[in-house]
Amino acid sequence: MKTVDLNCDMGESFGVYRLGNDQAILPYISSANIACGLHAGDPATMRKTVKLALENEVAIGAHPGLADLVGFGRRNLDISAQDAYELTVYQIGALQAFVQAEGGTMQHVKPHGALYNMAATRPALAEAIAEAVFKVNPELVLFGLAGSELTRAAEKIGLRAAHEVFADRTYQADGTLTPRTEPNALITDDQAAVRQVVRMVTEGVVQSVQGADVSIRADTICIHGDGAHALEFAQCIRQALAAAHISIRPVRS
Amino acid sequence: MKTVDLNCDMGESFGVYRLGNDQAILPYISSANIACGLHAGDPATMRKTVKLALENEVAIGAHPGLADLVGFGRRNLDISAQDAYELTVYQIGALQAFVQAEGGTMQHVKPHGALYNMAATRPALAEAIAEAVFKVNPELVLFGLAGSELTRAAEKIGLRAAHEVFADRTYQADGTLTPRTEPNALITDDQAAVRQVVRMVTEGVVQSVQGADVSIRADTICIHGDGAHALEFAQCIRQALAAAHISIRPVRS
Amino acid sequence: MKTVDLNCDMGESFGVYRLGNDQAILPYISSANIACGLHAGDPATMRKTVKLALENEVAIGAHPGLADLVGFGRRNLDISAQDAYELTVYQIGALQAFVQAEGGTMQHVKPHGALYNMAATRPALAEAIAEAVFKVNPELVLFGLAGSELTRAAEKIGLRAAHEVFADRTYQADGTLTPRTEPNALITDDQAAVRQVVRMVTEGVVQSVQGADVSIRADTICIHGDGAHALEFAQCIRQALAAAHISIRPVRS
Amino acid sequence: MKTVDLNCDMGESFGVYRLGNDQAILPYISSANIACGLHAGDPATMRKTVKLALENEVAIGAHPGLADLVGFGRRNLDISAQDAYELTVYQIGALQAFVQAEGGTMQHVKPHGALYNMAATRPALAEAIAEAVFKVNPELVLFGLAGSELTRAAEKIGLRAAHEVFADRTYQADGTLTPRTEPNALITDDQAAVRQVVRMVTEGVVQSVQGADVSIRADTICIHGDGAHALEFAQCIRQALAAAHISIRPVRS
Repeated sequence: MKTVDLNCDMGESFGVYRLGNDQAILPYISSANIACGLHAGDPATMRKTVKLALENEVAIGAHPGLADLVGFGRRNLDISAQDAYELTVYQIGALQAFVQAEGGTMQHVKPHGALYNMAATRPALAEAIAEAVFKVNPELVLFGLAGSELTRAAEKIGLRAAHEVFADRTYQADGTLTPRTEPNALITDDQAAVRQVVRMVTEGVVQSVQGADVSIRADTICIHGDGAHALEFAQCIRQALAAAHISIRPVRS
Repeated sequence: MKTVDLNCDMGESFGVYRLGNDQAILPYISSANIACGLHAGDPATMRKTVKLALENEVAIGAHPGLADLVGFGRRNLDISAQDAYELTVYQIGALQAFVQAEGGTMQHVKPHGALYNMAATRPALAEAIAEAVFKVNPELVLFGLAGSELTRAAEKIGLRAAHEVFADRTYQADGTLTPRTEPNALITDDQAAVRQVVRMVTEGVVQSVQGADVSIRADTICIHGDGAHALEFAQCIRQALAAAHISIRPVRS
Repeated sequence: MKTVDLNCDMGESFGVYRLGNDQAILPYISSANIACGLHAGDPATMRKTVKLALENEVAIGAHPGLADLVGFGRRNLDISAQDAYELTVYQIGALQAFVQAEGGTMQHVKPHGALYNMAATRPALAEAIAEAVFKVNPELVLFGLAGSELTRAAEKIGLRAAHEVFADRTYQADGTLTPRTEPNALITDDQAAVRQVVRMVTEGVVQSVQGADVSIRADTICIHGDGAHALEFAQCIRQALAAAHISIRPVRS
Repeated sequence: MKTVDLNCDMGESFGVYRLGNDQAILPYISSANIACGLHAGDPATMRKTVKLALENEVAIGAHPGLADLVGFGRRNLDISAQDAYELTVYQIGALQAFVQAEGGTMQHVKPHGALYNMAATRPALAEAIAEAVFKVNPELVLFGLAGSELTRAAEKIGLRAAHEVFADRTYQADGTLTPRTEPNALITDDQAAVRQVVRMVTEGVVQSVQGADVSIRADTICIHGDGAHALEFAQCIRQALAAAHISIRPVRS
């Protein structure tokens, strides 16, 4: 039986500010990427989110980001590879302590936002992040954009990589995501999104916007946790995966 | 042979800002308390300081503080016990990851500044900090003011406590430090400071400002790392301890 | 005809985080206290909120707070009087520039949260804040708890003070607020809250929890902007004030 | 008689961290660019630096930067033009309040580090910054790299621009600075640096690394305030300007 992981960003609240709908979305996913206090999250939110994930038997990952709270870690910042290494070690560690304190184990690391995007195309950043993960704990799985520099760097250093795909994004003939600046970047029809995901998992291909099928490896699917529509789509994708006899499981299980 | 630990705060630089004289002071101490990025320090400084400590075979501790960089963690902030727990877990974890990445082990945790002072007298904060340390790693030693609520809380939960004494501060008849607001709070004569330390370690007593001797437990001595005088005093105290046949060793050795 | 000001905290969003319901509450109030980026708010939110206030012809005030975003400026921090002066100057200035850029004028300053509370009882902090306001612009009105050290300091230095009262809090026989830790601190019945406000404005007295009436000066009433109930209460208080022939106007008008 | 302005970055300390040598360098310069709390500086440092500048009769400017304290505002961050506008308004305002409180006036605005560099070449950012300055106070002078998008945007909106030149940097045949990544980017010989500056001011040209003279407008010269060599170079340039009968004056005088 085919399996795939469903991951979602979590623990993005900060102080009095609430973001996302973690409690509601947790029953639908298998892996949680928990913010580590730099682009979002704070120690109280991290503790609470780790507990929630453990209660829901969802695998836990660190979700390190740039130290840009006001920009939510979404703006590219010209960091060095050494900066990327250090930011990653710091944030994995901070989350790891909450996981240890609650008696759990950490499964993975998924960089957030601009750090994820920059690491997808810049080998030096990708390798620095992979090295950070490996040196803290070589058993951790590194989540990165399918077929990117980040998954390549993970595999090169000896980490297990989870290739991540997006249900609601279109792909180019070379396997990259259509940039969000393009009009056809997003798939707004749930059924189309779900069909794309099922093909990725069962056939290992995605139809590009140019029409041709492209090979793609889909270890984990990114689910968005906020927005009114998030829960509905999570249910929708679970049903479709079940109908296609695809089991939803954490990557390390 | 009697032994004692000499500890010093380290890794307090931040970005372009330099503070302290870590490289010079490391050869004189046995334990380094490394700032964790909230009251001082940043990921780059943490990594560098961990490496330096390992190279100098100095035991490493996390030095968690309040999230008050502009105040250097020295201003009391009305945090809850839960805040104290979470701040401590977060910062131990962040440092722990750098220690792991460099192949070392962490020996201890010593709260910084206002967190240290508040935990010395407030049982709820002390217990929250001790619980945080214990839940992350029960092998860690918790450094606290000798005879304070913090050392008491450590021992209560089952942690090893290191009772910390100060060479350059005077003590009251009840064993507490003379408040800095008092004119006779500081010992400015190096030889007097050194004599006080040697008595604490060898006899387990300190002469209070009121004249009577008070029992005190001296597991570790706090050395200041900044100021023109720091190195000179470090040399002075090492000579005096050697002359008194007291060996300088990390608390967990 | 009697008049009173209705003020509300605004502009407390930060980055992607949304807080409050500014657009809905603005039509009901006469003065907006706009966060200045330290305890809440950011430059984008400040600009937007200033524009909204001007469009709604609501008077604008700076709402300076402690530099404690994760604690929303609600936790007492042991700052010096000089710290209070500097924090206040900085934040008034930052907001003032947005007001100038939009062609408006600033009416007032109201410290936030812990800064407000500490300044209510500590003369040195109160005087430092009043001096900061006076030196930046002596035409500004300083909002403070009715009868507190802050209004006293304002009047002493030559500023106009606006004495602030609370609709939903009970008062002690000495005119101070019942601490929130007491069971009877809050008035949860809207009609009782409204009656208290009307008496304060028309008669200059409030009935204390001990039963006796106490003199109080009510220049401005604090309205809470968040919570499901906020809008309803704002409507309720406006109706009651209209029925009592009390006109709602900014303090400087 | 020819005149030129000498400017220097100031007020870059933060909390316990000291940077630069403001008190020593102030007697040598005519304009001080004072950090505003985001890339460096804090309210206490701003107040102190404003006072020092006034005492030394040096003209005061705001030195707004990116909100990247750990990177000292030197790392490019992918901000929008709106972000640039808002960051600039905020920081000008914050400094302006300290200047008002001390009874001074603000002369100019000079963006810092990555904000300065990005604004030199990106018209949208340059125009947003110029608009921010203009809307807060159209009398302010905007300092930018000589011949850059920033000085162009200033002049376009109706601000006075001060074209800034560097004594210790080489120039290309198109009038741009040689990138720091090039081996010949820096002029390390003081006499050569000084000769370059004198030619810029008296003849309006600079010899490019390619050999040909290029037109350049030199309204203000950037002096570095930190480093052991800073004071010596400041003295050196003052002597050379005096010898060439060039008077040192703030741009708005």
